[in-house]
Amino acid sequence: MAIQPVLIAGAWRPANDSATFQAANPATAQPLPEVFAVSRWEDCEAALEAAAAAAAVLRHAPPERLAAMLDRLAQRIESRGEELVETAHAETGLPKKPRLADVELPRTTDQLRQAAAAARDGSWAMATIDTRLNIRSCYRPLGPVCVFGPNNFPFAFNSVAGGDFAAAIAAGNPVIAKANTSHPATTRILAQEAHQAALESDLPPATVQLLYRTSHADGRRLVADPRGGATAYTGSRAAGLELKAAADAAGRPIYLELSSINPVVVLPGALAERSDKIAEEFTTSCLLGTGQFCTNPGLVVLLAGAKTDEFVEAVAARFRAAPAGTLLSAGVARNLSASVAQLADAGAQILVGGRPETTGGYRFANTLLKVAGEKFLAAPEKLQTEAFGNVSLFVVARDAAEVARVLDNLEGNLTGCVYSDTRGSDDGLYGTIAEHLRGRVGRLLNDKMPTGVAVSPAMNHGGPYPATGHPGFTAVGIPASLRRFAMLACYDNVRPHRLPPLLADRNPTGRAWRLIDGAWAQANVGG
Amino acid sequence: MAIQPVLIAGAWRPANDSATFQAANPATAQPLPEVFAVSRWEDCEAALEAAAAAAAVLRHAPPERLAAMLDRLAQRIESRGEELVETAHAETGLPKKPRLADVELPRTTDQLRQAAAAARDGSWAMATIDTRLNIRSCYRPLGPVCVFGPNNFPFAFNSVAGGDFAAAIAAGNPVIAKANTSHPATTRILAQEAHQAALESDLPPATVQLLYRTSHADGRRLVADPRGGATAYTGSRAAGLELKAAADAAGRPIYLELSSINPVVVLPGALAERSDKIAEEFTTSCLLGTGQFCTNPGLVVLLAGAKTDEFVEAVAARFRAAPAGTLLSAGVARNLSASVAQLADAGAQILVGGRPETTGGYRFANTLLKVAGEKFLAAPEKLQTEAFGNVSLFVVARDAAEVARVLDNLEGNLTGCVYSDTRGSDDGLYGTIAEHLRGRVGRLLNDKMPTGVAVSPAMNHGGPYPATGHPGFTAVGIPASLRRFAMLACYDNVRPHRLPPLLADRNPTGRAWRLIDGAWAQANVGG
Repeated sequence: MAIQPVLIAGAWRPANDSATFQAANPATAQPLPEVFAVSRWEDCEAALEAAAAAAAVLRHAPPERLAAMLDRLAQRIESRGEELVETAHAETGLPKKPRLADVELPRTTDQLRQAAAAARDGSWAMATIDTRLNIRSCYRPLGPVCVFGPNNFPFAFNSVAGGDFAAAIAAGNPVIAKANTSHPATTRILAQEAHQAALESDLPPATVQLLYRTSHADGRRLVADPRGGATAYTGSRAAGLELKAAADAAGRPIYLELSSINPVVVLPGALAERSDKIAEEFTTSCLLGTGQFCTNPGLVVLLAGAKTDEFVEAVAARFRAAPAGTLLSAGVARNLSASVAQLADAGAQILVGGRPETTGGYRFANTLLKVAGEKFLAAPEKLQTEAFGNVSLFVVARDAAEVARVLDNLEGNLTGCVYSDTRGSDDGLYGTIAEHLRGRVGRLLNDKMPTGVAVSPAMNHGGPYPATGHPGFTAVGIPASLRRFAMLACYDNVRPHRLPPLLADRNPTGRAWRLIDGAWAQANVGG
Repeated sequence: MAIQPVLIAGAWRPANDSATFQAANPATAQPLPEVFAVSRWEDCEAALEAAAAAAAVLRHAPPERLAAMLDRLAQRIESRGEELVETAHAETGLPKKPRLADVELPRTTDQLRQAAAAARDGSWAMATIDTRLNIRSCYRPLGPVCVFGPNNFPFAFNSVAGGDFAAAIAAGNPVIAKANTSHPATTRILAQEAHQAALESDLPPATVQLLYRTSHADGRRLVADPRGGATAYTGSRAAGLELKAAADAAGRPIYLELSSINPVVVLPGALAERSDKIAEEFTTSCLLGTGQFCTNPGLVVLLAGAKTDEFVEAVAARFRAAPAGTLLSAGVARNLSASVAQLADAGAQILVGGRPETTGGYRFANTLLKVAGEKFLAAPEKLQTEAFGNVSLFVVARDAAEVARVLDNLEGNLTGCVYSDTRGSDDGLYGTIAEHLRGRVGRLLNDKMPTGVAVSPAMNHGGPYPATGHPGFTAVGIPASLRRFAMLACYDNVRPHRLPPLLADRNPTGRAWRLIDGAWAQANVGG
C-alpha cells in the first residue's frame, strides 16, 4: 500500500519516515485503508527551512492576497464539501448531518471568510500613531506558526483550515500543520485545497505545509526551533504540557488549549422555575458530539434539596434513554473509562452508565456521577479530572458557602455558567456565585449552555491555566485571535517612505481602525 | 542598628528575617547606614494572603479611586522630591542633576499620571460588544502582581511607583514589590508614599506591599504561587530565567526584560554626510548614565572603509576624553569586567579602556572594542555578550551582505537603529538592512539613538526573546502596558444588570473607547 506523501516546500513528496500509521473508523473500530508516515526530523527541518523563507515573503505580501487565499480556500472547501463530510465522518464517527455538513463545515468557511475580511481591513494590527513624537507601532507577522489540531473538530479546528490556521495566515504567517492522527485523510484534503488556494493567490508554495505525525521528541524540537514564530496547540493536557515546556525554555510563544470541565451552577430559583427545560438543555449540551467538546459541561454544581433531587433524576432518565454516541478514537474511549474510574475512586457515585458499550465501535455509556460538596472538597483535584466524552459529574453542595468553596477549588476553565430564575429571586445568590466563578473562567454565561462558541469579535475561547497557557488570549474571535501570531513592532522616527503602509499617514485600506493620538479613527493622519 | 521593617498587609512590621543586608554608596564603595532584612518565606506567604484579599476588593473598586491613588502618589513624590533625589543619588551614584531630579523623577510622575488617566478613561480594557449575539468582553484585573525592579532606574522602573507598578495598579491589581537591593532606601520612601496614597484613596491597605529581599528559592515560589496574578521582572538574564522557569511551569504569566545590546547600523552615506555629529550622538547615548540603560547602544555595525576608520577614531577620542562615570554597584562593575574580558577573549580588540578604574568607587574605564565582521560571525554568541555599562563593540563588516549576516546572527533585542544619509544615497541599502533588523527588535529607529524611551501609546519597550519573554507586550507605553496584568473576560448572554459597568449599554465614563459591532466608539450602545 502506497504511503501518503507529506506536503513540504510546495511539493507533495514521500515522507522521510520512521514508521507508518492508519486511522480507524470509530464506528467499527476497524482501520481505514490509507497509510500515513511518521516523519523523521529531516521532514521537520525541511519544513522549517521552507517556512522561514516563505515567512520572509509573506511579511510583505499585500493583505489582499492573504485574504484572497482564505476566501478561495473557503470556496474550495465548499466545492469538495461532500467528500470532506464523508471522509471526516469515516474518521471521526461524528454525524454527517447536521453536525459535519450543516454546522461544522459552514462554521469553518465562515471563519475563513471572517479572517479574510480581517486581513483585508487591517484593524487587527492595532496601528498606533503618535504624531507629536513620530512614534508608530502595530502588530506584524511573527513567522512560521506550527499548528497542532485537536481530534474533536475535523474542520473548524483542523490544523489546516481551522481557526488557528485562519488566524495565522490572516496575520501573514506560513503554517506548518501537524495533522491530528485520528483524521489524517480529512486533513490531507484540506491541505490540498489550502495549497492550491495559496498558489492561485500568488503566495509562496510553502505557505501551507503538512506533516502527519512526528515523534514527541521531534515535536518538542519543532516548537523550540528559532526559525519558528509561534505554536498553537489544542489537545490533551499531557502532550500539551510537554510542548509548552520545550517552547517556554526556548522563549518561543505557544498558545495552548489543554483541558476544561466547564462548571455549570444551577441556582434554586432556576430549578423551581424551569427544572425540566434546564434538564433538557443540559442533556443536549452534554451529549452533543458524544460530549467531545472543549466546552462540554462536565461539572454541575447544585444546592441540596428536593428540587435538586428531582432535577438529578430527570437528567439521569434522559441520559439512560439517549443512545450512546460514537467516540472519536480508541484512545478517547480508553481515557474516558480511566477518568470515570478515577472519579468513582475519589468518591463519586455512578448514577447512570459508567462502563464501555460492547458493540458498535468506540462507545461508552452516557454517564452521570454525583458527589456531595463535602466529599468534593476532600479531593478537589481528583474530582475535577476531565472526562472527555459523554460524562458529567453533579456536585450537590449543602449551602451557598459550600458552592463558593467548591468554585474556589476549581482550576482555570474555558467557561462557567450560572442558571438563575428570570424573576430575580436568585439575584442575591448570583452575585456571590459569579464572583467566585469569574476569575476562574474565560467566558461567563447566564442561562445558556457552554457548548456553542460563536465566532464573534467579543468571544473568548480561552481562560486561566490550565484551560490555556495565558489568560489574555483567545483562540476564537476575530480579530483578537490573529494577534497571537504577531509581534509588536515600533517605528521611532522612521522616515515616512520607509513605514509599512498601515503606519503611513494615509490609511491604506480606508477601513483600518488606527489609534491616532489617543483616538480610534479610520481617517488619514491629519484628517 | 534597627532593621528596616517590611510593609505587609498594611503595616510596617519587622521582617521574618533570615539575614540582613546594606546597600553601598557606589561613589565611595562604602556601605550605607540603613540595614534591611532578607525575608523568609513567611513574609511572602503573608504578603500573598493579604494581596489576594486586596485583589478581591480592588477588582470592584471604582476606577476613579485607582486613578486618585496614582495621582496622589505622583504629587507625594514631588513633595518629597529632594529627599528622594538625595537618597537615590547616594544609593546609585546617578547624578542628581539633570538625571535624577530633572529627568527621571518627572518621567516617573508623568507615567503615574498617564496611568491614572488610563484607569479613569477605561479604554485600556478594550471593551468589545457584539449586540446581535449579546456577547461582551473586556480585560479585567488578573490579581496580585509581583514586581521585581531593576537597579538602573531607581524611580522610573522602581518596583514601587515605576512603570510596571503604575500599570499593575491602573489595571486594578495590588502589587507585591520586591525592592532592588541596590536602592532599598529609595524604595522604602516610595512605598511609604504609595501606601499613604492608597489609604487616602480608600483602597485596601494591602494594595502596596514591600519586601526588600528573599532567597532565590522563595522568589521562584512567589512567582509560581496560585494566588498571584502575574509577575513583572526587569534585571539580569540569569536571575530572570530562573523566575521564568518557575512561573512557566506553574502556568503563571511573567513579563521579563532580560538583556539587549541594541544594534546600531551606520550606513556609509550617513558617515560621509555627518560623521562627527553621529560620533557625538553615539558617545552621549552610550555613556549616558554610565551606559547603564536597557537600551544602551552596545553594538555598532559599520562597513569597512576610510570613513569608518575615521569614525571609529573620532568615537575613540571622545571615549578617552570623557570621564568614566560611576557604576551602580560592585556587581555591575564585576560583571562589566567579566563581559569585556569575554569579548576580548572571543577576538574583539580593545581600542580604549578595558580595565576598572582604581579610584572613586565603582568605575570602569569608558571602553570601546572592535572586531571584523568575519570574526564576529565565527563566534556570534560570545561576541554579543551584554556588557552592561559604558562599553560598546564596533563590528566592521566587509560588505552589505556581511552586515546582513551579522544581523541575522543577533538574538532578540529591544531596539535597533539605522543611520542613513538625508539625501537618499543609502536608501537602497536601507531596505536590506532594515529587513534583517526588523524581526529581531521591538523598536526600529532611524537617525536617532535608542536610549530615549518616550512614554507614548505607540512606544514598544519590548522585543523578541531574550530581550523579553514574549514579543507581543510592551513595558512602556500606556495603555498597552496595562493589558499585561489583565485577563480577557467574556460575558455571554449575561443579563444587563450583572455586567461590569464598562460593558453596559451606557458608556460609564463617556470617554472609554469600545469596539461595538466592529466599530470603535465612545458612544453608548445604540447611539
